[in-house]
Amino acid sequence: MTDKILELLEEKHYSELKEILSETEPADIAYMYEELPEKNMPLLYRLLPKELAAEVFVELDADTQEMLIRGFSDAELKEVLDELYLDDAVDIIEEMPANVVKRIIRHTEPEMRAGINEILNYPKDSAGSVMTIELVDLKESMTVQDAFTRIRRTGLDKETIYTCYVTDKNRILLGTVSAKDLLLADEECVIADIMATNPIHVHTHDDKEEVALELSKYDLLAIPVVDNEDRLVGIVTVDDAIDVLQEEATEDIEKMAGITPSEKPYLKTGIIDTCRQRIPWLLLLMISSTFTGKIITHYEDALGELLILTAFIPMIMGTGGNSGSQSSVTVIRGLSLEEIEFKDIFKILWKEFGVAILCGLVLAVATFIKVITLDGESAMIGLVVGLTMFFTILLAKLVGCVLPLLAKKVGFDPAVMASPFITTIVDALSLVVYFDIASRILNI
Amino acid sequence: MTDKILELLEEKHYSELKEILSETEPADIAYMYEELPEKNMPLLYRLLPKELAAEVFVELDADTQEMLIRGFSDAELKEVLDELYLDDAVDIIEEMPANVVKRIIRHTEPEMRAGINEILNYPKDSAGSVMTIELVDLKESMTVQDAFTRIRRTGLDKETIYTCYVTDKNRILLGTVSAKDLLLADEECVIADIMATNPIHVHTHDDKEEVALELSKYDLLAIPVVDNEDRLVGIVTVDDAIDVLQEEATEDIEKMAGITPSEKPYLKTGIIDTCRQRIPWLLLLMISSTFTGKIITHYEDALGELLILTAFIPMIMGTGGNSGSQSSVTVIRGLSLEEIEFKDIFKILWKEFGVAILCGLVLAVATFIKVITLDGESAMIGLVVGLTMFFTILLAKLVGCVLPLLAKKVGFDPAVMASPFITTIVDALSLVVYFDIASRILNI
Repeated sequence: MTDKILELLEEKHYSELKEILSETEPADIAYMYEELPEKNMPLLYRLLPKELAAEVFVELDADTQEMLIRGFSDAELKEVLDELYLDDAVDIIEEMPANVVKRIIRHTEPEMRAGINEILNYPKDSAGSVMTIELVDLKESMTVQDAFTRIRRTGLDKETIYTCYVTDKNRILLGTVSAKDLLLADEECVIADIMATNPIHVHTHDDKEEVALELSKYDLLAIPVVDNEDRLVGIVTVDDAIDVLQEEATEDIEKMAGITPSEKPYLKTGIIDTCRQRIPWLLLLMISSTFTGKIITHYEDALGELLILTAFIPMIMGTGGNSGSQSSVTVIRGLSLEEIEFKDIFKILWKEFGVAILCGLVLAVATFIKVITLDGESAMIGLVVGLTMFFTILLAKLVGCVLPLLAKKVGFDPAVMASPFITTIVDALSLVVYFDIASRILNI
Repeated sequence: MTDKILELLEEKHYSELKEILSETEPADIAYMYEELPEKNMPLLYRLLPKELAAEVFVELDADTQEMLIRGFSDAELKEVLDELYLDDAVDIIEEMPANVVKRIIRHTEPEMRAGINEILNYPKDSAGSVMTIELVDLKESMTVQDAFTRIRRTGLDKETIYTCYVTDKNRILLGTVSAKDLLLADEECVIADIMATNPIHVHTHDDKEEVALELSKYDLLAIPVVDNEDRLVGIVTVDDAIDVLQEEATEDIEKMAGITPSEKPYLKTGIIDTCRQRIPWLLLLMISSTFTGKIITHYEDALGELLILTAFIPMIMGTGGNSGSQSSVTVIRGLSLEEIEFKDIFKILWKEFGVAILCGLVLAVATFIKVITLDGESAMIGLVVGLTMFFTILLAKLVGCVLPLLAKKVGFDPAVMASPFITTIVDALSLVVYFDIASRILNI
């Protein structure tokens, strides 16, 4: 498909090209355009009919958007801006350098400019920053017929018309009416009689992840956002909520792997930026592993006597790390999905304790058998390593489930507590246990 | 709130209780009911008005649903079933034991029964298994007014009326019309003139995760599902797509941490089941770490001479493991979100190579400084450990990015390749590098 487009472009078969493009989804056009050499971009973009052009523009990368804006005439820029939904315009502006932003703001309609400024003022990651102010609002006294008239008159520019919001004269949110309710109701019905009261809503400063979870929990297509005085100021639509949930899952995964989260997709992030995301954690963990080194040095003399003990260090530390991550990652994801809360700590501890005892027993027996058969060591060594495994798993699972919960409680990000951090703690603990058990049993 | 309900229940203030419940969201009622003692459940459930009862039923845990069904009279069961959407009914049936399923099937309307059987026949995790067959279908020749009449007549039982699907007499999918298009169009317009042709669609056997990603990519409220002959058989709605995306993210996270994914939330999974999810990986990784042990044993004599080298093993293996996870987890998440594909392998390798060189240099210098200052060792030891760090990071990052890509290529799950598995490989490689460099530089 991409080759075909390039071919038509080079042979100047513009009308055929236009026809193909008008049949293609905006997201797909953007994807293909990004694959083509950058120099063709301005021409390719101008081949798109006006409305489609704006839809494609939204889907492009920030770099490409900036390049296009710099090449636009004032009239062209205005044409694109007039077609954009407010929340898309805000997303674009957030990625642009200051001089481009100035030019954009200068060319937007006064009404949209006010909206953009309002949304840009909400804190990053708040409901206000991801909402749109374009919604259909109704009054209690309207009839269903009035509502349809209003939807027909104002609905074209709204991101969703499927949930309408009923407000009083001070814009206080009173209820919601779905387009389905309207369609199935009699034309003479009054909105007050068919609206759902006490609608689920969020506040402008709520965290956007919580907003997305609420929307998903109640299976809504959009969730209303109110300010401190309960006045309706906007809505968050389901497509934006999905993006928030996907981003948050990616961020959690990155944090669990010891990476500072970035907002850009992997292939678009430069080498230097990627290093900046990764080096701090590697350094921190490298330095914290000094402890484990010190522990080994401390027992060095004993080791000299029984060097074979060092051969099992990787296995013990590895199993400890893995057991700890299993617990911490489960708890962290549960916290993110709001399936578990801090108050569940005793239920969780009790459960992890049971799991640890069982996992520990199985692994200890397996280890004992492996050490005396596969590794061909004495039963005494097998006993030392097996016992160490048991206690390491016990410690790892308890540390692994408690740390993220405590982090949550004191307001830290639980995801940062995951694998690498817990592994370091468990490594140190397991070595102490190992050498302690060894010195008791083997009398060294 | 929960206490209040229990109080009203015990004091038999049923009408007040009913009033409170009728103002509460189904998801919240289900959450509260689950918190209350199980013995109150049947009575509490019967306090709900018919339609709300069905909505609450859908939100309950499978165990509670089963308990309620077993207590229902045939008439009560039929009442709930009649109110359920088809896809919710299928979700419930999938969790029930065979005898309960039989009873459910016996009491459903013939039409719904056919639908349930159809969906149950699709493979697990396919589009067919998460779709609903309840949709509004229109014909090309209808006018907008005809369409509204049809929506009003059949729409009440449909999960969404906001996208209508236009099919020909053989049920081949021709196009879609949104309720917005209908509302904004003239009543006399013919559907053929306002429908969007070539609609985005998926096939019954497509993976449900891909279906959810498609829906999110094109910002749809529902995506049509067609069979092998391009006949429309159902739709997947956005609320189910969100659930799929959240489940898949959780599964990926679990696999990355060496846990066999489960479908149940953490607190609902028993200790034995949790152990079953976790022990296989711990065992596998424990046994595979035999290699690292063997490597250490192999170099044991050399170690005897310079025991201090063992003190740095945890640091080297830890940094290797962390570097490898950083790369693998980034690649795995990129693959899941379809941001990267196998054909990007050279771009990724090139990038990770650059990142590895830079990270490696920084960490090597930091390690050298740490070893000669904090640890007070000689410059030669510092050199050995620093060089090892550099090569370990290089190897770890390359293994970390290549393995998930290869897994994807040959049809394995990339997420299973993550942290624990790659760590084991990197551990072994880094030890070989360590002892090799040590024996060259220190002539042992």
